[in-house]
Amino acid sequence: MKFVIIGGDAAGMSAASRAKRLNPALSVTVLEQTRDVSYSACNMPYNIADPSRSMDDLVVRTADVFRNKQGIDLKTGHQAVQINPKQRTVDVRTNEAKKLNLAYDHLMIATGASPIIPDLPGFDLPGVMALKQLADGRMVKSYLRKNNVRRAVIIGMGYIALEMCEALHLRGIEVEMVKPRPDLLPWMPRELAADVQETLEAHDVVLHLEMGVQRIEQDGKRLKVICPDLSISTDMVLVAVGVRPNSGLASDAGLKLGASDAIAVNRQLQTSDSAIYSGGDCADAFHVVTGRRSWVPLALRANRAGWAVADHICGKPVNLPGIAGPAVFKVFDQQVARTGLTLTEAGKTGYDAQSVTITSGSRAHLYPGGTKVQVHMVGDKSSGKLLGVQMVGKESVAHRINAAAVALHAGMTVAQFVQCDLAYAPPFGGVWDPLLVAANQLVKKL
Amino acid sequence: MKFVIIGGDAAGMSAASRAKRLNPALSVTVLEQTRDVSYSACNMPYNIADPSRSMDDLVVRTADVFRNKQGIDLKTGHQAVQINPKQRTVDVRTNEAKKLNLAYDHLMIATGASPIIPDLPGFDLPGVMALKQLADGRMVKSYLRKNNVRRAVIIGMGYIALEMCEALHLRGIEVEMVKPRPDLLPWMPRELAADVQETLEAHDVVLHLEMGVQRIEQDGKRLKVICPDLSISTDMVLVAVGVRPNSGLASDAGLKLGASDAIAVNRQLQTSDSAIYSGGDCADAFHVVTGRRSWVPLALRANRAGWAVADHICGKPVNLPGIAGPAVFKVFDQQVARTGLTLTEAGKTGYDAQSVTITSGSRAHLYPGGTKVQVHMVGDKSSGKLLGVQMVGKESVAHRINAAAVALHAGMTVAQFVQCDLAYAPPFGGVWDPLLVAANQLVKKL
Repeated sequence: MKFVIIGGDAAGMSAASRAKRLNPALSVTVLEQTRDVSYSACNMPYNIADPSRSMDDLVVRTADVFRNKQGIDLKTGHQAVQINPKQRTVDVRTNEAKKLNLAYDHLMIATGASPIIPDLPGFDLPGVMALKQLADGRMVKSYLRKNNVRRAVIIGMGYIALEMCEALHLRGIEVEMVKPRPDLLPWMPRELAADVQETLEAHDVVLHLEMGVQRIEQDGKRLKVICPDLSISTDMVLVAVGVRPNSGLASDAGLKLGASDAIAVNRQLQTSDSAIYSGGDCADAFHVVTGRRSWVPLALRANRAGWAVADHICGKPVNLPGIAGPAVFKVFDQQVARTGLTLTEAGKTGYDAQSVTITSGSRAHLYPGGTKVQVHMVGDKSSGKLLGVQMVGKESVAHRINAAAVALHAGMTVAQFVQCDLAYAPPFGGVWDPLLVAANQLVKKL
Repeated sequence: MKFVIIGGDAAGMSAASRAKRLNPALSVTVLEQTRDVSYSACNMPYNIADPSRSMDDLVVRTADVFRNKQGIDLKTGHQAVQINPKQRTVDVRTNEAKKLNLAYDHLMIATGASPIIPDLPGFDLPGVMALKQLADGRMVKSYLRKNNVRRAVIIGMGYIALEMCEALHLRGIEVEMVKPRPDLLPWMPRELAADVQETLEAHDVVLHLEMGVQRIEQDGKRLKVICPDLSISTDMVLVAVGVRPNSGLASDAGLKLGASDAIAVNRQLQTSDSAIYSGGDCADAFHVVTGRRSWVPLALRANRAGWAVADHICGKPVNLPGIAGPAVFKVFDQQVARTGLTLTEAGKTGYDAQSVTITSGSRAHLYPGGTKVQVHMVGDKSSGKLLGVQMVGKESVAHRINAAAVALHAGMTVAQFVQCDLAYAPPFGGVWDPLLVAANQLVKKL
């Protein structure tokens, strides 16, 4: 039995490792086009922030360990160029331009996602970079080391953009951020986004909202980011306007695509060809709230999907419930967290969505040192169901959100959630947890 | 319609306020034997730690506000001495020894709990104190102000004992702690308790385990705590060996007692006499895991019970699911949290209980500043259900526990919990949250 995996990061390598552990007799081959496998991409901004650390610190397990200790046939520098579902083979090209044709019984596509690079002039200039693979991180770090970077422009204001903003600021670089839409973090109510904006401005980050970039130009040794009414002179540009799933190989092979053009998979991670699995940032998932296909590329899902593919191939029952659409990130002293649907998403999905926004505290108000916690909670008027939560605050927010995530998995109504017996002690919050304060308000509106 | 409430702290005053808000025509009378109503008892240790703060800071709402703004007939200095269920009256004695007889349509008993004071010689000496009511806090604080307290002995090692240990230490007082049983925090596995013990010892707290106190003696201006092989000279003694429900008034009136001799109530907070409700630390509750009666006196339940009694009296449907047995406290730099059943409790309840203990980190291991998080997770082999979680660590533990609490409310199996999509970012944990790391292990054992 031959199990071939295309892509050697979180989803691919966790599938390979687990499959080999469950069934040592299985032949497991991984095709990875770069030289890097199994690294922590999410840690790149924090690594970039610290000039003393090497990007190679982020490698979780080296290729040698996978090859020699785990018996996985790991082929780095090998790019899958075509899948032939009828023949059950994959055409492969190596870095040395050799061609191979590999047969499989089970195939897994774990090709991840790629940063979106706008098709505009100058985005290919040296010093204009994006951040997704470890090689990207090395390039940013090397650029910072070799050049006297005093100013940087970040295009985009999503979580990678904001994490990189903090990283560059920590290296003493002045950061300007540019985006075409009028709102910072438009998926959050303005009251919540305002706390993030305040923190950015307190750290002298310049935000250019409603500012679409037209092109980037070389300007001597520097770069110029050109917008309709603005031209920003800078030493580097980071493009962080989002990612898209690497689903081309799959669609070329005739596999169905799902949400956001990610590869459509069922709860067993099988694509429209049951011998071909997919997981990680290239595949979609069912949303636990809506039951619909959804695409939220995140590390935990990638790891879980890898395990699930291995389990299913090795004969274990698998039925992944799906994702709750979580996100959590830190920008300077603010923590931002979400799970489930936003009010807008809930409305678009067809719910009779109601929401509340409350302000509470990270500690009991009598306990010193507490800070503001804002909670936005969304529920459905017709079913009473909890649909989603967003939070912003300087402490506790990143961990508090998980109580709401579990409630979404359980399909709780707001009235059920409000009765949950959450822990209380003054150093950690009020008698009524901020989530319960919000739920107490929301339950009245439903 | 007359609603009479015995006891003016969390449960009683929240019932009074909400009932008056829901039905302004209702006559609401509260009988409180002390002069204090609606204060935050849980904040007393932190208030005691800070000599500059007054104990009166802990009053959430004053008697005047309840009387004048909310129209509640709040009678402080009034002690209920007998309930006459057949006549639907309460006999009351005032501080001035006046006697009253009050009629009610609905009665609520919210008499709270009292610290257990061992019936041994010397526990009534000046300088031997306990901590439950605001008056107790005032007494401790006044004692510290008037006496040159350099050493204190705390009898007991539960969470109030540990919180007070930190508070006294912060005031520069050397603390010794004494208890008869051999284990610190015996409801936790030793590996978890060891982290708490290490922190106590690092702060020069002396722990005398397996040491039963025989008596306390006056020793000039000081006190002597006498154990079989030990005599500790000290300036003050804090007795913190637990609390018991104030259910005497209820049992004298023929009402049924439930778990731990607390007043038995149904999911509508009614006692065995349907005109008499009870809530707060004097009443029991159903445990969401076992469905059995349980007594865990905590502030959130008291507030929730108060609201529920008011709702039920005012004609709203009420069906409280019950408690998950949470506890969370801080002792120096350690956070300790639990929810649900311990392994021992699960075994005694009749579950085929299995557990795992894992060590993980508060942040991703590549992210600087992370600290150890230990998780003990208990599940039932026959049903697969999650039964309980205990955690110890220096950060994030107090908020992480709530994800498990919600899972208990939802009746999740460990296999369901392990699929929950918890949030991940390196500053806040690994890809697999410590709870999921534990659940991944436990699911293999079930």
